[in-house]
Amino acid sequence: MFDLRTYLEDKRKLVNAALENMMGALPSSRLLTQAMRYSVMAGGKRLRPILCIAAAEAVGGSERDVLKVACTLEMIHTFSLIHDDLPALDDDDLRRGKPTCHKAFGEAPAILAGDALLNFAFQVLTEGGPTGKTPASDRLEVAHRIARAVGHMGMIEGQMRDMEGEVRALSLSELEAMHRLKTGAIIEVSVYAGARLGGGSASQISTLEEYAGCIGLAFQVTDDILNVEGDPALMGKAVGSDEKRNKSTYPSLLGMPGAKQLAGSLVEHALKALKPFDKRSDALRAVARYIIERKR
Amino acid sequence: MFDLRTYLEDKRKLVNAALENMMGALPSSRLLTQAMRYSVMAGGKRLRPILCIAAAEAVGGSERDVLKVACTLEMIHTFSLIHDDLPALDDDDLRRGKPTCHKAFGEAPAILAGDALLNFAFQVLTEGGPTGKTPASDRLEVAHRIARAVGHMGMIEGQMRDMEGEVRALSLSELEAMHRLKTGAIIEVSVYAGARLGGGSASQISTLEEYAGCIGLAFQVTDDILNVEGDPALMGKAVGSDEKRNKSTYPSLLGMPGAKQLAGSLVEHALKALKPFDKRSDALRAVARYIIERKR
Repeated sequence: MFDLRTYLEDKRKLVNAALENMMGALPSSRLLTQAMRYSVMAGGKRLRPILCIAAAEAVGGSERDVLKVACTLEMIHTFSLIHDDLPALDDDDLRRGKPTCHKAFGEAPAILAGDALLNFAFQVLTEGGPTGKTPASDRLEVAHRIARAVGHMGMIEGQMRDMEGEVRALSLSELEAMHRLKTGAIIEVSVYAGARLGGGSASQISTLEEYAGCIGLAFQVTDDILNVEGDPALMGKAVGSDEKRNKSTYPSLLGMPGAKQLAGSLVEHALKALKPFDKRSDALRAVARYIIERKR
Repeated sequence: MFDLRTYLEDKRKLVNAALENMMGALPSSRLLTQAMRYSVMAGGKRLRPILCIAAAEAVGGSERDVLKVACTLEMIHTFSLIHDDLPALDDDDLRRGKPTCHKAFGEAPAILAGDALLNFAFQVLTEGGPTGKTPASDRLEVAHRIARAVGHMGMIEGQMRDMEGEVRALSLSELEAMHRLKTGAIIEVSVYAGARLGGGSASQISTLEEYAGCIGLAFQVTDDILNVEGDPALMGKAVGSDEKRNKSTYPSLLGMPGAKQLAGSLVEHALKALKPFDKRSDALRAVARYIIERKR
């Protein structure tokens, strides 16, 4: 039987070592790079890089093919957390159990550290030199797809709509559209990049993107659930903040049983999409289940 | 005789039309893309794109080879202005004679619009399709060089040091290092990208980068001078802000005559670097002179 706990732990170590390598090479004497490193190395599940690696493995590729690109997805995720936590946005003091970037370094350094992390991701994505067998045109395409998932057609537009959702009530379809942008687009492109650089066929890639669309949304529904029912000690942050802000969430729109049912059926759909894949996609299967069972 | 006014006006129109095309294609109903477009289309000298085009022409290339990349440099410049103007950084209300992005749209939308513009630049830089004769590996290299010029090794690190310079006095060499990062790196890479995509040889490219280093610094020295002596009506912003903030500037460290002398000798050096080039580099020559003669 596939042991997800060991798999996640192994890959997390691998990703952390690669990130430590990249962030550790930045000047240690500068506030900007200190803040970048602090936030990237503050912990976290490393879900996006692990999904990228698992998708590469599912199509017969290896972690070596995608490790650098996987790390850029975590840099981009961290950039979005730093800016999301700012006083002008969510105004959060704690993230992953530690002071948020602006609490530790100040607001201006946090804004710039977020900027620099987003930029660093593209610096790495466009890096030349021995990056294995991937031709330049493929690397350009992966970088482009990532940019589309991050910007005004993806994550950042989702952040904007999320804020608008704090001002007025969102309908269920607006909520889903917002989440597909805010968290879904990056999760999808993580799986896309892994499958693409791992050598997957066009049909394998699009099937895995369907899988990713489902688990991305399931992840968000679960986040909403944990914001009501989660254990602050396990999560490293306060719960109940959505309700306090009067945010539209799955539990607020569907009730708690309805939200849990939705998460479950999304995971079922994700598992169904994986049917054509062999046991090399067991990690993706296990991640799908983990997403709704997680406690943080 | 070369007519710089007409040249700048023609290229500015060309760049503005291309930018309007790119920004006009974004959804007009969304606050995020409205804010992005507002700031990009708020005017400005378009110095970086024009330098990119002029560098391409100097090595025998054409504006068609570089127009898209030239526009991404203006997007990146605009991103840096939006974030620089934020309350946590320079806290400016006016930019190019109009309300700054956070004054017009709010602080959170301005933070996200800046993020999305930086990202959009890389989205365009990594775009596939018919971009002329440039091979994917060259486009990857140009995108990479731009990323290096923007991030923790360039502009953003310069913004951080600029803020530190408001807290304590900088030495002349610290001031120069800061400016080379904050504005010099982008101006250099604008010229690099133009020369590279315009088909310049390695030695032509490095000579033009030397030119760019000089005019980039001269531009900044002149900015400091205009902040003391400029006409607010012509500049579209208040003057005297550096002194009010107790910032280290060239006039504060060298005195006004010393600052003017430095700007002049940097421009001389830039013109000397252009010696091996024929009259197709006349625009670059004229820009070098314009930089210290400009009134805004």
